[in-house]
Amino acid sequence: MAIETVNPRTHGDTGGDAEDIPLDPVFALHRGGKMEIASTVPVRDAADLSLAYTPGVAEVCTAIAEQPELAHDYTWTSQAVAVVTDGTAVLGLGDIGPRASLPVMEGKAILFKQFGGVDAVPIALDCTDVDEIVETVVRLAPSFGGVNLEDISAPRCFEIERRLKERLDIPVFHDDQHGTAVVTLAALRNAAKLTGRRLGDLRAVISGAGAAGVAIARILLEAGIGDVAVTDRKGVVHAGRDDLNPVKRELASYTNRAGLAGSLEDALAGADVFIGVSGGTVAERAVASMAPGAFVFAMANPTPEVHPDVAGRHAAVVATGRSDFPNQINNVLAFPGIFAGALQVRASAITEGMKLAAAEALAGVVGDELSAECVIPSPFDPRVAPAVAAAVAAAARAEGVARR
Amino acid sequence: MAIETVNPRTHGDTGGDAEDIPLDPVFALHRGGKMEIASTVPVRDAADLSLAYTPGVAEVCTAIAEQPELAHDYTWTSQAVAVVTDGTAVLGLGDIGPRASLPVMEGKAILFKQFGGVDAVPIALDCTDVDEIVETVVRLAPSFGGVNLEDISAPRCFEIERRLKERLDIPVFHDDQHGTAVVTLAALRNAAKLTGRRLGDLRAVISGAGAAGVAIARILLEAGIGDVAVTDRKGVVHAGRDDLNPVKRELASYTNRAGLAGSLEDALAGADVFIGVSGGTVAERAVASMAPGAFVFAMANPTPEVHPDVAGRHAAVVATGRSDFPNQINNVLAFPGIFAGALQVRASAITEGMKLAAAEALAGVVGDELSAECVIPSPFDPRVAPAVAAAVAAAARAEGVARR
Repeated sequence: MAIETVNPRTHGDTGGDAEDIPLDPVFALHRGGKMEIASTVPVRDAADLSLAYTPGVAEVCTAIAEQPELAHDYTWTSQAVAVVTDGTAVLGLGDIGPRASLPVMEGKAILFKQFGGVDAVPIALDCTDVDEIVETVVRLAPSFGGVNLEDISAPRCFEIERRLKERLDIPVFHDDQHGTAVVTLAALRNAAKLTGRRLGDLRAVISGAGAAGVAIARILLEAGIGDVAVTDRKGVVHAGRDDLNPVKRELASYTNRAGLAGSLEDALAGADVFIGVSGGTVAERAVASMAPGAFVFAMANPTPEVHPDVAGRHAAVVATGRSDFPNQINNVLAFPGIFAGALQVRASAITEGMKLAAAEALAGVVGDELSAECVIPSPFDPRVAPAVAAAVAAAARAEGVARR
Repeated sequence: MAIETVNPRTHGDTGGDAEDIPLDPVFALHRGGKMEIASTVPVRDAADLSLAYTPGVAEVCTAIAEQPELAHDYTWTSQAVAVVTDGTAVLGLGDIGPRASLPVMEGKAILFKQFGGVDAVPIALDCTDVDEIVETVVRLAPSFGGVNLEDISAPRCFEIERRLKERLDIPVFHDDQHGTAVVTLAALRNAAKLTGRRLGDLRAVISGAGAAGVAIARILLEAGIGDVAVTDRKGVVHAGRDDLNPVKRELASYTNRAGLAGSLEDALAGADVFIGVSGGTVAERAVASMAPGAFVFAMANPTPEVHPDVAGRHAAVVATGRSDFPNQINNVLAFPGIFAGALQVRASAITEGMKLAAAEALAGVVGDELSAECVIPSPFDPRVAPAVAAAVAAAARAEGVARR
């Protein structure tokens, strides 16, 4: 076939605007993007075409028109997910816009495929208004079996997710919130198990009241944590502050039972768990002031809030977001399996129970290998996605959101 | 790897809502859809991830944020096209809605890949309002390098295409209009060549004033046809009628120089070319009334306006839309190469000149094989897409819309 001769990617390899960019390994790898469409059916001759395209395809269209749920059986929506962003909170880079966010979204898409068998399509939107984003996603939703929201800045991300969940009967999941929360909870469960404690005995402090911080606080409370306080740049989020946006005001209403009101450092004194999702820094003396046998999850990337070697002098368990230290809190441990499980049973939503089940299954994969240096599996552990998917599918059935 | 065990497509193969659908070959083939995402880069270990995802990807994002045109080099938008529909005019099935249209859109996507090396994503929209469709496509445009509009009913399709072309600086192409027009013109050029006539000598009658009919009329006039009249259900579209929508009124202003005013049958008397894109029927006596050596392109699917055997008793060249007769007017001869060529040179639009060049290149592929039974190549002729792509890329450069 002559396909290669007209492949725009092949042509993209020569010349062009990028000549002045040094061909380091990262740029060389990104040439022409990181993903492609592949046909899963043969298209060799007229007989193939008459099945996959006209006239045969009309039978399938007619069947779906009469019985819309058949779209799940006979289109790729059974395993296709839109990875939707507006480019406002990309990695640690911030608001870089939709085009510049695409390499991250493509990376997400190939992780979805590699670990979950899910076909994900980057949808980077040229709008940041909440109403516009919600309407746009609702309109394109028939094309997909799920929506993974990605790198949308707080607090807009909360309202966008809430409204999309109301409007759509397919899974909607903001990974920066819930993927992070699920993996954090899994690591915390194993750290507690390792040190012989119950979640209800622990007081946690979360640095960062953005997407990840809010979602982690919620899932820890659902899982039965003893207490959790969240801090932003001005210190502990509490009901007495008059500078809180609506999301933080709500956060203050259900966190911080201890009634803390000071700085992050104040809050850490005697705390059992530190969870950093802020990008700030934590002094060694603050870690030293925590309760004996503390857990320090310093997840800021690329620079953890406190260096793991420093944290290790005082804490019983240390985790980071980095692949070059033990215990990497990495969302890829959660989102592929969560969507794979939800899609398997055609879940109409991803519920709190499904997220808790995902965290439990993820923690369970560690099994006998549990140690201070292994409270969470490696992202490349092949047992992870199937375990998470099975747990999520079972929870979807138990919670009545499964449709098969 | 454990990928297979969590692949929703694999799971979709057992049980589910589709059990009551007979497993004929068409439905069996469509199980789980016809396409998937594939990674074009390795994701085997942490080293791979650090290049394709964090932290490496941040370098590429930063570069694109500083120099937005680099998105063409370092994301799949260099070869990715959205196949956008609202499901209002699908095949001959009509307004079956976005979900039921998906098997056609997936079919289109795999043809894009197979013949043009273009990565196409079905975007079936749950809205039919022109403003909403335009806004939605504008918002998701950063995710793609081009927009192929598909199966959107007339006359809305004309305004949607016009407005998207104004708003976007990437190729926007309504295939039902222009794909059909390009292939029809190519066949007509070769039919004229075969019979020793010039386009300027020919009077054509087009049955059908929808997307295809209007676009064919336009391209034939641009190519220098002697005269063309278009008919709808009420007969020839002419300025004297008071029942015309704005598109047909405009059509009346630049077609039908002969001033015809009767029925399709009236218009065919003495005409040199019949082009059927209506789904109606044409009686044998009407074909017999055409000029000697006429061309009959009866393109309705699955039932041509006049059976090719009947047409063949009177016409010098007969073409249809079907694969089981000679001279199949099939859009797949045009759209993969047109987009491949436009994307190769990063064209900001698909101009009239690029379409004319595509038709000329497509006609040229036939070469010495030209005969009454071969005025257009087979869809599986491997020379087609490269020839069309090269001609379109050259025309884009000549017309000043190429950006590389």
